[in-house]
This record gives sequence, structure tokens and C-alpha cells, in this order.
Amino acid sequence: MSEKNTDGLGLVETQSVALCHEGLPLDSGETLGPITVAYETYGTLSEKRDNVILVCHALSGGAHAAGWHEGARKPGWWDCMIGPGKGFDTNKYFVLCSNNLGGCYGTTGPSSINPATGKPYGLSFPVVTIPDMVNLQARLLDCLEIPSVLTVTGGSMGGMMALQWGVAYPERVRSTIVIAASHEHSPQQIAFNEVARRAIMADPTWNHGDYYGTEGPRLGLAVARMVGHITYLSDSGMQRKFGRRLQDRERYGYDFSQDFEVESYLRHQGQSFVERFDANSLLYLSKALDYFDLAQGFESLTEAFERARGPYLLIAFSSDWLYAPEQVKTIAKAIRRAGGDATYYEISSDYGHDAFLLDYDRQAPLIRSLLARVYEADEGKHAAANAQ
Amino acid sequence: MSEKNTDGLGLVETQSVALCHEGLPLDSGETLGPITVAYETYGTLSEKRDNVILVCHALSGGAHAAGWHEGARKPGWWDCMIGPGKGFDTNKYFVLCSNNLGGCYGTTGPSSINPATGKPYGLSFPVVTIPDMVNLQARLLDCLEIPSVLTVTGGSMGGMMALQWGVAYPERVRSTIVIAASHEHSPQQIAFNEVARRAIMADPTWNHGDYYGTEGPRLGLAVARMVGHITYLSDSGMQRKFGRRLQDRERYGYDFSQDFEVESYLRHQGQSFVERFDANSLLYLSKALDYFDLAQGFESLTEAFERARGPYLLIAFSSDWLYAPEQVKTIAKAIRRAGGDATYYEISSDYGHDAFLLDYDRQAPLIRSLLARVYEADEGKHAAANAQ
Repeated sequence: MSEKNTDGLGLVETQSVALCHEGLPLDSGETLGPITVAYETYGTLSEKRDNVILVCHALSGGAHAAGWHEGARKPGWWDCMIGPGKGFDTNKYFVLCSNNLGGCYGTTGPSSINPATGKPYGLSFPVVTIPDMVNLQARLLDCLEIPSVLTVTGGSMGGMMALQWGVAYPERVRSTIVIAASHEHSPQQIAFNEVARRAIMADPTWNHGDYYGTEGPRLGLAVARMVGHITYLSDSGMQRKFGRRLQDRERYGYDFSQDFEVESYLRHQGQSFVERFDANSLLYLSKALDYFDLAQGFESLTEAFERARGPYLLIAFSSDWLYAPEQVKTIAKAIRRAGGDATYYEISSDYGHDAFLLDYDRQAPLIRSLLARVYEADEGKHAAANAQ
Repeated sequence: MSEKNTDGLGLVETQSVALCHEGLPLDSGETLGPITVAYETYGTLSEKRDNVILVCHALSGGAHAAGWHEGARKPGWWDCMIGPGKGFDTNKYFVLCSNNLGGCYGTTGPSSINPATGKPYGLSFPVVTIPDMVNLQARLLDCLEIPSVLTVTGGSMGGMMALQWGVAYPERVRSTIVIAASHEHSPQQIAFNEVARRAIMADPTWNHGDYYGTEGPRLGLAVARMVGHITYLSDSGMQRKFGRRLQDRERYGYDFSQDFEVESYLRHQGQSFVERFDANSLLYLSKALDYFDLAQGFESLTEAFERARGPYLLIAFSSDWLYAPEQVKTIAKAIRRAGGDATYYEISSDYGHDAFLLDYDRQAPLIRSLLARVYEADEGKHAAANAQ
């Protein structure tokens, strides 16, 4: 047995590649290119190039899914799940994560320079969709000479991308792990996103998206994030975490500064988000979520899944009311109706939607088990092929 | 039998009275006065002055609970429940509703002129609480020479005021009807209110509350109301009402105007609210909600209810996730633990929190039954007293 690294991934770096020089056709009818894609990889690509795990990130994530950047205070957003011996075991698998189209962590988005004008795109950036993002990831796989992936996975928006992958590129996806996601946004999900967008657009410093080089819509973006953050937590989780405890005071202040811990927490979330995220990217990515409809172009969701292959693992969290278990269960049912292989787990947790980033100890065994099943089935297939 | 009016209340007018010339002591320690109180009454006060129903309004309501104002397009906010033959039958009862302290429909609030300066109070208006509002209502009853009420009732914030009445003035309350309310805000409820406040305060035209004579924080207030409105509806109700239907278009617009009906609805709600409500009042009233803690000053909620008399009727709605049935049930349990008489009903409805304004046909019989029980018990008591 070779010596295995079990100390975490250590330092990692984001890589970057320019793609689609002749333009990526978008759902909107527009064409975008060239497109820079930021990505990270962890682990070693097997000789057969058959051990790839494509990780798709959520709304505010990026390519930096695991390991540490030089000088950083926090590791990548899914470090608890990706690394030597972890759920996505980099001793076995080659993990790839790229920043989504429209984002602000290295992949082309509204804050990128439009080569045609030499200025940031702003609102001249075309509206992009989840299928557009997945199509760009497919170009990235082409570029990296990865014919297919062992699994495509993600939570929240990442889970919606994984769903899109399975239906759009069934021949390139050997299994799919969807966590806390939906095949389409409900009107309530759209409503929360619309409020976030309006909060940004109500900020006069947003200036119709043309704010680069200025501070930008800091207050509006903070409000938008605060709305989002409430939906990421559960009522019971907030009760446990904050209750009605006061922040830095023993009695009510009888003013509008801050009284409760939960207020302080939300404001901190809003303010720190402003330091790290582009307001226009939030507009574009939230719109992509609202537009997403996996059944679009099919008679039904079931028909969409008739194209899909390989097993699906679907994970929901009991207290997630943003992407409620019922929504995830609907996906599992449609896959089964289409004759597919779907395993649905509801993990009991009071972390709400955020559980997909936190409850790793209960997700990891489910994931390891699916990966082993698919990878070993492949190994068996290879062995059988070699024996013929 | 006298002829009964069953055609509705017809035209009604708001009345106004100046109270507390020597100042109302507030929870904050400040004193406020004189205070103008706007109120409406429906029905006829009995000779014994014992048929009074005090109706408390919700966050954005006012004294105009029922009947029609000259030239108005809509009746009062609870017209479905108040009137001849209705749940609160004005053929029998005398209904009184006053605008809450801090509001913007005639009772003194942040948009009122501060007599000391001749200018609107703005943020110099003291922070007021639910107990302050109830204390002011008690002064109004004094002024109207109403010693006690047959019932005090309200939904949402009005329900919280009813709860406060029962504990603060047990000798003046013969029964209490609490609809879709809570004895204290959970951290999630505080969080939604805090987002609404931040949306207003993020609008530069809010100008630290000093915007009277200008358009004021229209965009911020609209965002605040949109957040609130999502919490008033249920996910299933939104699904039924809007689904993912597009507004005035057949395909996605691939822009940030509006795509979905639910977006259009929310924006309309936000915009129309701006025409009718004062942003500072929303700050003050939402803060009062967050501060409310019926058990404050007692060892427990149960101990608080040991003071209360008369029966309680508590109504919750199955799909109300803002003031969830579990919160209302907690109140009923505490009343019973304190030896009180509490009847709890959960009405199955997909209207969410808004159900208290809409599902009148199922609330009315419950209310009529409680009122008859209390009023007839009183009648019996009077008869017995007269016979002695």
C-alpha cells in the first residue's frame, strides 16, 4: 500500500484557462466569449482519467472548494468534505471545481472586463442560465481532456447544476449527488431572490450596474445577503444559536442600533459579504436560479430523467425550508418513475439549508458508499474488458 | 324584535381625541404627551356599557377596521369580520378600534408634529412598546367611560396587544381572542423585521428619519414591505396563486425587469405600501413587536397568565409560518397551566399568516360562540344581581 496523506490538502492554488474564443451560445440567444474559467483540482487524475469528481458550488461559492490559499484564515468552502480520507477522498479521486459563469471569483462575469470595450461588463453582461454554466463546465472538461466524470455533485445551486449535468450530458456523467436542491424554484424561492435583487437595485450607488471603480451598492447588497441568510438557517437553529439574547447589553436599548444577537449576526453576515462578493453577480446568479427548470423542453420532469444514466444520490435536511425535503423527494420520485436509480436520504438537522456545508459527518458515509459502488463497478467492468 | 341592519356598516368616520396632556410614561423611561388617538366605533354602546369589543390592529392597519370611508375603493381592514350579523356582530356589540401609538393613521407617531419643535418627530419620537400602546388604549377607554371590555381581540400584532391587555388589565378584560400571534418574537421573526428596518435605513433618502416634506425612502420601504409580504403568504398558497407563471410574457425576458407573476405581485405590494405608510412608523412598530415579551417581569409565561381572567380563544392557521401554530399553542398551554380557560383552534388554510384577514367564515363561528358565552354569562350575572 502506498503512503496516504491524511493531513488535509494543505496549500492549493486557483488555476485559470481561457475558453470559448469563438463564443459560447447562451440560452438567451446571445453568444459570449472568450470566457475565462477559474478552477481548482485536488488529488491525482488516474491514468484512465476515470476518477473525476466534478463539484459545483452554490450561489456565493467559488472554485476554491478545499485546501488553503496562502495566508487565508479559512479553507475552501467544502474543505470538510474534500480531502484525504474525507467524503470526497482525494487519495482516490480527482476533484475538480470551477467558478460558475457570471460569478466573481475568477470566471468571467459582470465584473470582468469586456474585451470589446475595455470596461467591466456591468449589465451589458448577458443573462446566463444554469444550462449555460453547465455547458461552460463541459468545455472545461474538454479542455482538460476529461471525457466523463465519476460523479457530479453540489449543494443548493450546485445541486441544480448537478441535475442539469445528468440530463444534458448523460454520457459524461456516471453518477449524480444532489444535495439540498430543487429541479425548479417555487414562487417563494423566486420571491426571496427578487427581494434580494430589488434591495441591490434600490441602492442608488448600484447605478444600473455601472459602479465598478466606486464602492458600489454596499448597503443594498448587505440587505440582500441578510434576506438570504435568514433562509439559510432554520427557526429552531436560530432559537438554539441566538434565542432572544441581547448583544452587548443587559436591557433593551430603546433605539434602532441593535438589541438582539440575531440582529448583530445578520448585520455581520451582510457586511462581510459586501467585502467578498459582487452585487451584479448576485443579480445574475439569482436570476439563473429562478430561471432553472429541469423539465424545460420535456413533457415532464420524468421525461427529462429518461435521458439520465447512473445512480442518483439525493440528500435533504429536515429543517431546510429553502430547499425543503419535499422538493428533493420530488426529484427522487421522478427519477424512479423514469426507471432510474435514486436513493433519497433526509438527514435530521436543525442547521437549515446551511446543513449541506456543515453536517459533513452524516453526508460523507452516504457519498463514500455511492462513489465506491460506481467506481468499483467501473473497475469490475475494466477488469472484465481486460480479461476478454 | 327591533329591525336589524344586515347590509353592512355603510359609511363610517374616524374620530380623534387628545389624551395624556400630562404625558404617558413609556417603557423606555421617557414620557410622551399630549397624544392624539384616532379611533372608530361601530354598533351601539349598551346602557350598561358592557358590550364593548376592543379590536387591535396589525402592523400596517389602522383605526378604520370596518365600514367604508367616503369615496374609498376598499372597506376597513376587517370588514369581513365586523358588522351587522358578522363575527363581531354590531347588532349586539359596540366595536372600538384605535390606531396604535407610533402608527401613521391619525394617532401620534414619528410623522406627527412634535409640539415642542413644530416639526415632525422623526427619530426623536421615543421608542414605544406593545405595553405602551395598550396603556394608551386604556386611557382611551377611560376617556370614553368604558370600564371594561367584553373582549379584546386582534390578529398578528393585534393579537399580541390582546395578550398584553389580558395580563396588564385583567380587571378590564372579560375575554380575549388572540389570532395568529405570539407571546414573544422568535429570532427568525426578529431577523425578518431587522431586514425590513435595514432596507429602510439603507435608503439614503431616509436621511436618519428626517425625510418629511420629501418623497422619503420609497425604494427602501418597498423592499421592506416585499420581505414582509413573503412571510404573510405560505409556500403552498403562492404555488396555487402564482406557480411559475410568467407575467405579460410568453418566455423568459433574460433581463432584470420582471419575469414571474410572483415578482410583479410583490413589487405591486411594495409600491402600493409606499403610498399609504410611513417608513419611520414601520421602524417603530416592528421594533415594538421584537421587544414584546409577555413574560417580562414574571418568572415565566405561566406566571404572567396567573393574573389573567376570563376565557381565551386562540386561533392559528396551519400554513402560517410567521406566527406558526406551535407558537399559538404554546400560549394556550401556558394559560391552562396557570389554571385559565383556553380554547385553541388550528384552522386548515393555505393563506399563510394572511389567513386571519381572509378566512373569516371559519373564524366567525368560533368568535360568535365565545362572545355569546361571555355576554350571556354576564347577562345571567346581571339578572341574578337584579333579583337579589
